[in-house]
Amino acid sequence: MQSIGLIVPEGLPRAAAAAAEAAEWLRARGVWVYGLDGVRLPERLDALVALGGDGTMLRAARAAAERDVPVLGVNLGNLGFLSEVEPEGLKKALERLMTGDYREEKRSMLAVTAGDARHLALNDAVLSRGGYARLIRVRALVDGSWAGDYRADGLLVSTPTGSTGYSLSAGGPIIAPGVDCMLITPICPHSLQHRPQVIPGDAVVRLELSPDEPVEASLQVDGQAYAALHAGDAVEIRRAAECVRLIRLRTTGFFDVVHQKLIEWSR
Amino acid sequence: MQSIGLIVPEGLPRAAAAAAEAAEWLRARGVWVYGLDGVRLPERLDALVALGGDGTMLRAARAAAERDVPVLGVNLGNLGFLSEVEPEGLKKALERLMTGDYREEKRSMLAVTAGDARHLALNDAVLSRGGYARLIRVRALVDGSWAGDYRADGLLVSTPTGSTGYSLSAGGPIIAPGVDCMLITPICPHSLQHRPQVIPGDAVVRLELSPDEPVEASLQVDGQAYAALHAGDAVEIRRAAECVRLIRLRTTGFFDVVHQKLIEWSR
Amino acid sequence: MQSIGLIVPEGLPRAAAAAAEAAEWLRARGVWVYGLDGVRLPERLDALVALGGDGTMLRAARAAAERDVPVLGVNLGNLGFLSEVEPEGLKKALERLMTGDYREEKRSMLAVTAGDARHLALNDAVLSRGGYARLIRVRALVDGSWAGDYRADGLLVSTPTGSTGYSLSAGGPIIAPGVDCMLITPICPHSLQHRPQVIPGDAVVRLELSPDEPVEASLQVDGQAYAALHAGDAVEIRRAAECVRLIRLRTTGFFDVVHQKLIEWSR
Amino acid sequence: MQSIGLIVPEGLPRAAAAAAEAAEWLRARGVWVYGLDGVRLPERLDALVALGGDGTMLRAARAAAERDVPVLGVNLGNLGFLSEVEPEGLKKALERLMTGDYREEKRSMLAVTAGDARHLALNDAVLSRGGYARLIRVRALVDGSWAGDYRADGLLVSTPTGSTGYSLSAGGPIIAPGVDCMLITPICPHSLQHRPQVIPGDAVVRLELSPDEPVEASLQVDGQAYAALHAGDAVEIRRAAECVRLIRLRTTGFFDVVHQKLIEWSR
Repeated sequence: MQSIGLIVPEGLPRAAAAAAEAAEWLRARGVWVYGLDGVRLPERLDALVALGGDGTMLRAARAAAERDVPVLGVNLGNLGFLSEVEPEGLKKALERLMTGDYREEKRSMLAVTAGDARHLALNDAVLSRGGYARLIRVRALVDGSWAGDYRADGLLVSTPTGSTGYSLSAGGPIIAPGVDCMLITPICPHSLQHRPQVIPGDAVVRLELSPDEPVEASLQVDGQAYAALHAGDAVEIRRAAECVRLIRLRTTGFFDVVHQKLIEWSR
Repeated sequence: MQSIGLIVPEGLPRAAAAAAEAAEWLRARGVWVYGLDGVRLPERLDALVALGGDGTMLRAARAAAERDVPVLGVNLGNLGFLSEVEPEGLKKALERLMTGDYREEKRSMLAVTAGDARHLALNDAVLSRGGYARLIRVRALVDGSWAGDYRADGLLVSTPTGSTGYSLSAGGPIIAPGVDCMLITPICPHSLQHRPQVIPGDAVVRLELSPDEPVEASLQVDGQAYAALHAGDAVEIRRAAECVRLIRLRTTGFFDVVHQKLIEWSR
Repeated sequence: MQSIGLIVPEGLPRAAAAAAEAAEWLRARGVWVYGLDGVRLPERLDALVALGGDGTMLRAARAAAERDVPVLGVNLGNLGFLSEVEPEGLKKALERLMTGDYREEKRSMLAVTAGDARHLALNDAVLSRGGYARLIRVRALVDGSWAGDYRADGLLVSTPTGSTGYSLSAGGPIIAPGVDCMLITPICPHSLQHRPQVIPGDAVVRLELSPDEPVEASLQVDGQAYAALHAGDAVEIRRAAECVRLIRLRTTGFFDVVHQKLIEWSR
Repeated sequence: MQSIGLIVPEGLPRAAAAAAEAAEWLRARGVWVYGLDGVRLPERLDALVALGGDGTMLRAARAAAERDVPVLGVNLGNLGFLSEVEPEGLKKALERLMTGDYREEKRSMLAVTAGDARHLALNDAVLSRGGYARLIRVRALVDGSWAGDYRADGLLVSTPTGSTGYSLSAGGPIIAPGVDCMLITPICPHSLQHRPQVIPGDAVVRLELSPDEPVEASLQVDGQAYAALHAGDAVEIRRAAECVRLIRLRTTGFFDVVHQKLIEWSR
C-alpha cells in the first residue's frame, strides 16, 4: 500500500476530521494520500477509504471499481450497510489495511445505459415518475422477452447488494451477496399482480417508457438523478464487467448484520 | 333538475362528444346546461355530471361538494372506481337522474390545510419527496399526540374512498365506504415497522416535515400537485364539513365492484 | 372494590407468586379475593386482575365482559399489548385500583356463532385449514352481500384491538382503538387480489366453508381452538353486546405503545 | 421411447379417461405403458406423463427425478404451473414426445432430511405449526451460520420453481427458473423484520425447532405432510443431486406464463 485515496462527503465536519486524522496517520507511514484538499484521485491507487454514509460509500465503490482496487467503508453516516468500521476503530482498521490483514468480498455491479451515457451501480437503477403526480407506464424486457407492463411510481433493478436498500422499502426480498442474480422490484405498482422478480445475474434488462407517456420520467443510479427520459426512451441494465472489492475486517455473518441494521432503522 | 353542470377533461374527444350529446338531450328537456363551450359553472346548480376518468371525477366531486349537489360519474377513462355509468348507458342514466330514480351515497372528504391554502380531497393528501432522490423525514401527529416518525418516499392520508386509490398501491387495506375513519399509509418507508394505520374519522392529522430536511417536499391533493413544503413546514388534515353526494344507479355491492376493478387492473 | 378476581395461567410460577402477593395485599385491605386455590370466580365481582401473558389477558377480558366489570392486565408474559402494568408496579397499581385512580377504556368484542356455540372474542376469530396441507375455500358475506371467495390458509375477522395481533402477522393494518369497525384479513391467500378489508363495526360477517371442501377446517377464537367445521358449515361474526372495560393507568398514547412493542418483538 | 409411465390422481374421472386414451394411443405405437390398472412403475422407463393438477405433477416430478427421465405435465387440475399441455392437445403432445420434438428444462430439487427420512422436493419444504393455535419458534441456519430466529406460523424453504407456489401466497418474490438459489419465506411471522430471503443454491439450510417448544410442528414437503417434529428436532435442506427434466413444447416465456396464471387465479 503506497497510495491510498480518501473519499469524504462535503459538509460533514465529522467526516472531514476523521479523514484528516487518517491522512496524517497514513502519511506518517510513508503512504501517498489523495482525495483531500482539492487533490484529485489519480488513475492508479492501491486502495480507497470512504468516510461517510451510504451515499459516500456508493460513490467510493464506483471509483474503486473503475480502478480495480479494494475499498474500505468507515461509517460516519446513519446507515452503513456497506461500511466495515465505526469511526473509533479507524486506526486499527488502517493498520490491518496496511499489513494486508483483511479479506476481500467481491460484489457485482450493474452497467446502466441510457442514450449515450453509461453509469455504474453498486445498488440499483430506478426509473421513476420523478416529481410528477402521474404514474408512469414502463415495459420490462428480460433478454428480449416480455417481462411485464407496469403502471407504477417506478421500477427498480438492483444487485443483491442493493436488495437491502431502496428495494427493501418497496417490498423486495433480502438477497445474500453470493447469489448470482438481479432483482426487479416495482415501486407502488397499480396492479396487485406485480411482485418483485429475481432473474439470472447475466440477464439483460430493458426498461421502456411507454411511447405515449405524456410526462417525463427520471433515471436514478445509486440514488443520484442522472437523466430525464421521455416517451419511448429506454434504459438497458446488465451486469458490469467491473466489480467492487469490499474490504472485510469483521467476521459477522451477513444475516447477523442485516438483522442488526433492520432493528436500528426501526427505532 | 333545472340546471346541470357538465365536467369534461381537456383533450379527450370521446368525452367532449359524450358531453355534447348529453347537453343536447338535457336542453331538449328544458334543462340549463353549464360547463361547456367556455361557460363557467355557476354557484347554484342542481347536479353535476362528470364525463371522464378518475381525475375528472375527483375534480367534479370537489365542485359538487362545494355546491352541495349530487354528482354522477360517467366512465370515459380507464379506471372508473367512482363512476356509475358506462358511456353506452348515458341517456338512460340522465333519464333516471331527471326523474329522481336514484339513491345518493355520502362520501366524506378531507380538508387539507398547508399555510394559508385549504384544499378539499375526496381520495387523499400525499406529502412526498417529489422528484428528489432522497427520502423525506416526516413526523405524524394524531390529535396532537405522536403517531410516528417516518423516513419514506412519502406519507399518505386518505378517506375510505381513497383506500382503493394510491394507498392500495402502497400496501394499504381496502376500506368500505361506511367506516368512519381515515387511513395513514406510508409510501416505501425505510423502516419495516411502519404499517398502514386506520384512525378515527374525526381525528386531526398533522404531518410535519423534519426541521432539518434539506430538500423540498411536495403536497399532492387528489393527485394534483399543490404546494412545495420546506424544512419545518406542516400540513393539517381533518374531515371536511363538505361531503360528496355520489349518485348511485347500480345495485352492485361495494366488494363486487372492487373485485371487478382489481381484476381489470391486473391485465 | 370489595371483591376482586385474579386470573392466572397454569404452570407459570412467576405469575402464581405475583398473584399470591396481590391476594395477600388485597385481603389485608378487606377485599374478598377469588380465582386462586381452586376458588371459582363468582357471578358478581367488582374487578378482575389478569397476571400473565396475552392469552391470560384475553381469557380475563372475556370473564370481565360477561360480568361487566373492569379488568387490569399485569404483564408476566412476553407480549403484553393489553396489559397496563409490569410486575414491579403491581402494588402501586392495586392501590390506584382501590382508590379509583384510573380511567376505563372500552373495547368492543365480537360474538362468534358456529352451530349452537357462541364465543366472545376480544381479538379475533380465525377460520383456518388447521393441520391439513390443503388450502381451504371460504366465502365471505358482509350483511348478506358477497364479499369475496378465498382460497387461503385461513380467514381472520378481528376487532381494532385484534389488529395488532395475528392480523398484523398476516399483513393487516394497525387500527386505533376508537375506530368503529371490523377487519377481515386473509391468511396467505392464493390470489394476490385479496387484501385486508376494513368494514363497519355493526356489520354481520358470515364465513362459509365451501360445500365441496374435502377437509375439515378449524375455528379459533382469541387463539383457542373451539370447533372443527366441515363442508358447507358457516360461522357468523358480529359485534357483541358485551364489551371490555380495560383499566388504564398510563398516559402513553396508543401509537407510542404500538411502536415500542413492535421494536421489542423484532429483537 | 419404448416405455412410458402415466401418473394419474385417484378419484378424478377426467384424468383417468385421458390416461386411458393416452395409453391406447401409445400402445398402438408399440410403447409399453405403466402406471395404470394397478401396474406399478418399473425402475427403468423412458419418460413419465402426469395427467392431473399440481399435486400429481409434483408426485410425477419426484418419480421422474429418481429415474432420471423427462416428465410431461398435462393440465387436468386448476392450476397447472408446471404442466405444458391442456387436455385437448394431448395426442399432438404425445406425438412430439415420441419423435423427440421437444426441449428439456432442468429444474433443481431439494433434498429434505428429517431424522432418518429423506424426501425430494420440487417446490418446497414447510415447517409449520400444523393445527395448533400457537406460533412455533424456529431457528434458521445457513451453512452453519445463524440466519434468523422466527416466531411464526411456519417457515418455508423453496426452489425457484416453488417460488410461484405457497411462497407467493406468503409474500415471497417470483424467481426465474435459471437462478441458482433457494428461498426462505416466513409464514405470518410475528416480527415485521422478517422478510423473504434469497440464498445461494448450494447452501445448506437447517431449521431447528426451539428446544422448549411445547407443541409439535409439522413437516410438509411439496404439500404433503411427512413428519411431526418436536422440541429440539431439526430439518436439513440442501440441493438434491437429482433434478427434474421438464418436457417443454411451448415457446411462451416464463414471465408470460406467470402473468397468465396470476390473472386466472384472481378471478
